Amino acid sequence: MSAQADPVQDIAHLGNVELLTPKLDRSLWYFKDVLGMEVVHVAGSSAYLRGYGDHAASALKLTAAAQPGVGCISWRAVSPAALERRVQAIAATGRGIGWIDGDFCRGRSYRFRDPDGHLMEVYYDEQKFVAPDHLRSTLKNLPMRYTAKGVNVRRTDHLALLARDVPANRAFVQQALGFRLHEQVVFERGTKEIGAWLSPSIMHHQVAYVLDVKGGSGRLHHFSLWVDDRADVLRAADILAENGIFIEAGPSRHNNSQGFYLYSYEPGGNRVEVYSGSYLVTAPDWEPVTWNEEERGTGVYWGTALPESFLTYATPDIPAAAAAGARVPVFDPS
Amino acid sequence: MSAQADPVQDIAHLGNVELLTPKLDRSLWYFKDVLGMEVVHVAGSSAYLRGYGDHAASALKLTAAAQPGVGCISWRAVSPAALERRVQAIAATGRGIGWIDGDFCRGRSYRFRDPDGHLMEVYYDEQKFVAPDHLRSTLKNLPMRYTAKGVNVRRTDHLALLARDVPANRAFVQQALGFRLHEQVVFERGTKEIGAWLSPSIMHHQVAYVLDVKGGSGRLHHFSLWVDDRADVLRAADILAENGIFIEAGPSRHNNSQGFYLYSYEPGGNRVEVYSGSYLVTAPDWEPVTWNEEERGTGVYWGTALPESFLTYATPDIPAAAAAGARVPVFDPS
Amino acid sequence: MSAQADPVQDIAHLGNVELLTPKLDRSLWYFKDVLGMEVVHVAGSSAYLRGYGDHAASALKLTAAAQPGVGCISWRAVSPAALERRVQAIAATGRGIGWIDGDFCRGRSYRFRDPDGHLMEVYYDEQKFVAPDHLRSTLKNLPMRYTAKGVNVRRTDHLALLARDVPANRAFVQQALGFRLHEQVVFERGTKEIGAWLSPSIMHHQVAYVLDVKGGSGRLHHFSLWVDDRADVLRAADILAENGIFIEAGPSRHNNSQGFYLYSYEPGGNRVEVYSGSYLVTAPDWEPVTWNEEERGTGVYWGTALPESFLTYATPDIPAAAAAGARVPVFDPS
Amino acid sequence: MSAQADPVQDIAHLGNVELLTPKLDRSLWYFKDVLGMEVVHVAGSSAYLRGYGDHAASALKLTAAAQPGVGCISWRAVSPAALERRVQAIAATGRGIGWIDGDFCRGRSYRFRDPDGHLMEVYYDEQKFVAPDHLRSTLKNLPMRYTAKGVNVRRTDHLALLARDVPANRAFVQQALGFRLHEQVVFERGTKEIGAWLSPSIMHHQVAYVLDVKGGSGRLHHFSLWVDDRADVLRAADILAENGIFIEAGPSRHNNSQGFYLYSYEPGGNRVEVYSGSYLVTAPDWEPVTWNEEERGTGVYWGTALPESFLTYATPDIPAAAAAGARVPVFDPS
Repeated sequence: MSAQADPVQDIAHLGNVELLTPKLDRSLWYFKDVLGMEVVHVAGSSAYLRGYGDHAASALKLTAAAQPGVGCISWRAVSPAALERRVQAIAATGRGIGWIDGDFCRGRSYRFRDPDGHLMEVYYDEQKFVAPDHLRSTLKNLPMRYTAKGVNVRRTDHLALLARDVPANRAFVQQALGFRLHEQVVFERGTKEIGAWLSPSIMHHQVAYVLDVKGGSGRLHHFSLWVDDRADVLRAADILAENGIFIEAGPSRHNNSQGFYLYSYEPGGNRVEVYSGSYLVTAPDWEPVTWNEEERGTGVYWGTALPESFLTYATPDIPAAAAAGARVPVFDPS
Repeated sequence: MSAQADPVQDIAHLGNVELLTPKLDRSLWYFKDVLGMEVVHVAGSSAYLRGYGDHAASALKLTAAAQPGVGCISWRAVSPAALERRVQAIAATGRGIGWIDGDFCRGRSYRFRDPDGHLMEVYYDEQKFVAPDHLRSTLKNLPMRYTAKGVNVRRTDHLALLARDVPANRAFVQQALGFRLHEQVVFERGTKEIGAWLSPSIMHHQVAYVLDVKGGSGRLHHFSLWVDDRADVLRAADILAENGIFIEAGPSRHNNSQGFYLYSYEPGGNRVEVYSGSYLVTAPDWEPVTWNEEERGTGVYWGTALPESFLTYATPDIPAAAAAGARVPVFDPS
Repeated sequence: MSAQADPVQDIAHLGNVELLTPKLDRSLWYFKDVLGMEVVHVAGSSAYLRGYGDHAASALKLTAAAQPGVGCISWRAVSPAALERRVQAIAATGRGIGWIDGDFCRGRSYRFRDPDGHLMEVYYDEQKFVAPDHLRSTLKNLPMRYTAKGVNVRRTDHLALLARDVPANRAFVQQALGFRLHEQVVFERGTKEIGAWLSPSIMHHQVAYVLDVKGGSGRLHHFSLWVDDRADVLRAADILAENGIFIEAGPSRHNNSQGFYLYSYEPGGNRVEVYSGSYLVTAPDWEPVTWNEEERGTGVYWGTALPESFLTYATPDIPAAAAAGARVPVFDPS
Repeated sequence: MSAQADPVQDIAHLGNVELLTPKLDRSLWYFKDVLGMEVVHVAGSSAYLRGYGDHAASALKLTAAAQPGVGCISWRAVSPAALERRVQAIAATGRGIGWIDGDFCRGRSYRFRDPDGHLMEVYYDEQKFVAPDHLRSTLKNLPMRYTAKGVNVRRTDHLALLARDVPANRAFVQQALGFRLHEQVVFERGTKEIGAWLSPSIMHHQVAYVLDVKGGSGRLHHFSLWVDDRADVLRAADILAENGIFIEAGPSRHNNSQGFYLYSYEPGGNRVEVYSGSYLVTAPDWEPVTWNEEERGTGVYWGTALPESFLTYATPDIPAAAAAGARVPVFDPS
């Protein structure tokens, strides 16, 4: 038997995500006091935070900026060799920017932009988080104490990015990063790709690309944080409500991904998800699940449809007019 | 920069597990009516079952036998090339048995035994489950309908095997199968390895080796099935209690793995776990978490200690005398 | 100190509720196979059902009829003396109908209609449910086995009725039955009573009267069944979705009552709620919580507003034209 | 028909409970920072606390003392007239002490001791809690904000008291206070009453009397606080474990009461329960559920038996020798 091609498995996981915010103080309050993350470092106009279960020192970097949105998105390679392979594959696409020394707790990183313009980087070396005494857990396999403060999210789960050209961006992360496509939404008899959910591992997705119906560039749909149980998502809704934070949708269950979601806007304007459930994709010959207009419906498995804003609002926000001239299919068929 | 060695990532997941039972009818009742699995095939004195979320046609094979225990344990490779590599690595250990044609819905498989004598196989080709009409889910990404019958376990999670020589078996699956060691229990100042939790992927573990304190061979500690939420494990306890099934331990939370467990004995005598929680190990440079006597305690994070039987009972059961002459450290230091 | 007036505490709880259905077979499937209730008796074109935790032999009577809606609503008195007092109080209102022999498992009952025309009765004598062997629970304090079939609702919780004149009906059950008002919705600067939530005990409510915006008579808004945890309500949504049953709203949380709700339509057309949470009202000097237009919002504590149908659909359904001439304030101010 | 006797329904609910502690500062930390209660008043060597859902201003009074244990237990009457009736009934037993002016936020109260010596009082007038701005909830029907701090218990649920003579104390609260007996444990062929669970309302129990196997007097078995879901009890266990607090038993489920329990010792030594589940007793002709040795087993519905300490430890703790000469049946038959 001749050996067939092996799947690329060079990226381990989504690393640090940088969110931009025009209201750094209020955004810090949201992530720290409401979601219960820990601030581990402050430098210049940026703060670095982590969930109690994040392995790396920092999973979220908040940076003051004129507009909300996503800054640099980092991906950790499984080995130095894997990092080299990815850098070569990225460079071959002509989208590489070059090496930087590495942000807080990370080693040298190779920066690039996806076709839609989102800034990304790949790296391998990373400093592990060592909890100070007051944050040490009584569980030896937990990098940090469960502090029982607010929602107390466990860790980063995934990012959803908007793109004018979903297939181009989807193909880029498949080819340059080796991600696998687990689900997609394709309209107009299989000709119009509206959304793609991809992952470097058996996690359902660590990045999603969804059509930017306003024709913007480099925008963020949402940043998602994990809690262990659906009950924790319900509790998160109670906490957001008590804190007067706008809940856009949920808690409810998506049909694609099966994820149990709760979307709110952090004070800086970015959409943040508290997330649980979903499923692992272990089958090596998984065929991407493809949803058409009718099957996709409104993106929910139960209950009320997602609101219009879920399809039109992203950060930074732009006027609908920006899409002038572009032929934009309606994401929600209803 | 010269590329360093890549991690082996050739095995995708635990495939079908065969359990032997001296009471096939009663065991079938337990897995079908109490745990809510679906029988998809019957052949000879074996029945094939699946959870609603298992990707493969069958995750569990129940076979009539004089004694309870575990039969063949299969592991699916990520590609045909990966399968070839694993076969060569296994053969090189001298533990290979040879190729068979493949059991229900699986292609050709290469059989072998681990050092403790458990029968295993690796394979790649597998027939996907296609639900008949009455079992088709309204969720397109779910291979089978959630039937709401009994516990309604979602899928296989992992296996725990006993071994007289934990390090030998742990090293074998690391080297021959490429598994990663995520946690271990080591007593006597780091010299006596008592337990090892390993995985082919970012799942916390798909196999555990734990010291056989009776000095047996090829024995099963437990077979574990996944439910999505801790609330589902509590509900499982209610259902087991209503059905008069012996609950040995739980629902409670382990310290190692952080898993939320519930152990019962199926009527054939095998220990079965209903399981949720735990955590994903995404860090490529994860250092195995090692627990000593004091840290390990009784293996629970909260509440009451695991009962004595949890340390001494396995299938097939053997008298303690079988261990005559063997120096067996006590697993539970209390 | 001179003794002040005591509160009336003559009614113990909501007894059997009769639902009318034009599709008895399909309604039976819904309550039996999907919600997991048990059929305990069949007589003529009626079937009697119960949840595993209902104390009385039967909590729900399903009766074939041309139109869906609510039939007779029964209330159990705390003692024979209390029954006599309530009969006298009801008779004094001129709304009494008279004594009947008693339906399945209930003793003599005094029938009457509330001002909106809903048929009700009060009774004291009731035969306790004695589980046959196959339904006996392993819990001695559970009247029936938890069968783990479908949603497996525990017991009746409450009824919501529509009324053209909310204050008249609210005052009737306060005076004639001794119910306490726990919450209400009052619009137009406290002059327009839109909804009232009342109870004979410390349960938050066992009956609600809500304005019939179509000006109908004797109509049902919903019948509500209890499950123990919010997780059970989420699981119910999964089960309803797998069974292709229309989910109108939820799972989500009301602001008034704090209840965690899930509304679906049973095949006969009646709205049925799977319900958990809420709170007990133990304070004897509880002041009814009153919500105005702004505070009430759309009746939800989190997330998406209740759909328009929640405000306009009831059983039997009637055309909006029925309200011709009536000045009907909009229930939902948005 | 001649009216039969009505049930007494004069007591509304368990009011403030006073716990004595030799480590006031540490006990305050436990109730405030770990359980998430709010301190609303401090006077002398006492602090007054409340859960976010408690209606009264204060539900728990912590008082510095040489020994842990329970101080004064208050019961609120449903009306001034009901208060008078209870005072007369108590006085008639010869166990009355007399009126006091009323503790923090309560009006005049009549004090007495139960036959075992526990100090109690009945009262009617009580100041309602009015939340200061920073504690005001966004839910109009919630007396105080859900602060998402620690376990965040909702409200007081019940008390369990030890007694040398269970039937005498059980009969006293039935006759003097009008409580109903919902469940009991009776050993030795129905002759030896070991435990009794009683309530003034449809709540399963607000007080339990359990045999003091050491023959002490006026001792406390545990004080119980409510959370809404079983998931909240599991989360409480995680939080107690992270805070290094001794968990004696649970989370698990009792057979009697069906309650989902978690017992820990607050730093002062008193046993505190975080509790959910159980069931409401609405039937007016409820026959107390009686458990004998075999049925009762070890008091758990699932899993591991309650530890020995659960049967022998209470506050204040006393040596077993105190029972010299007394014939004390073993509570746990195993």
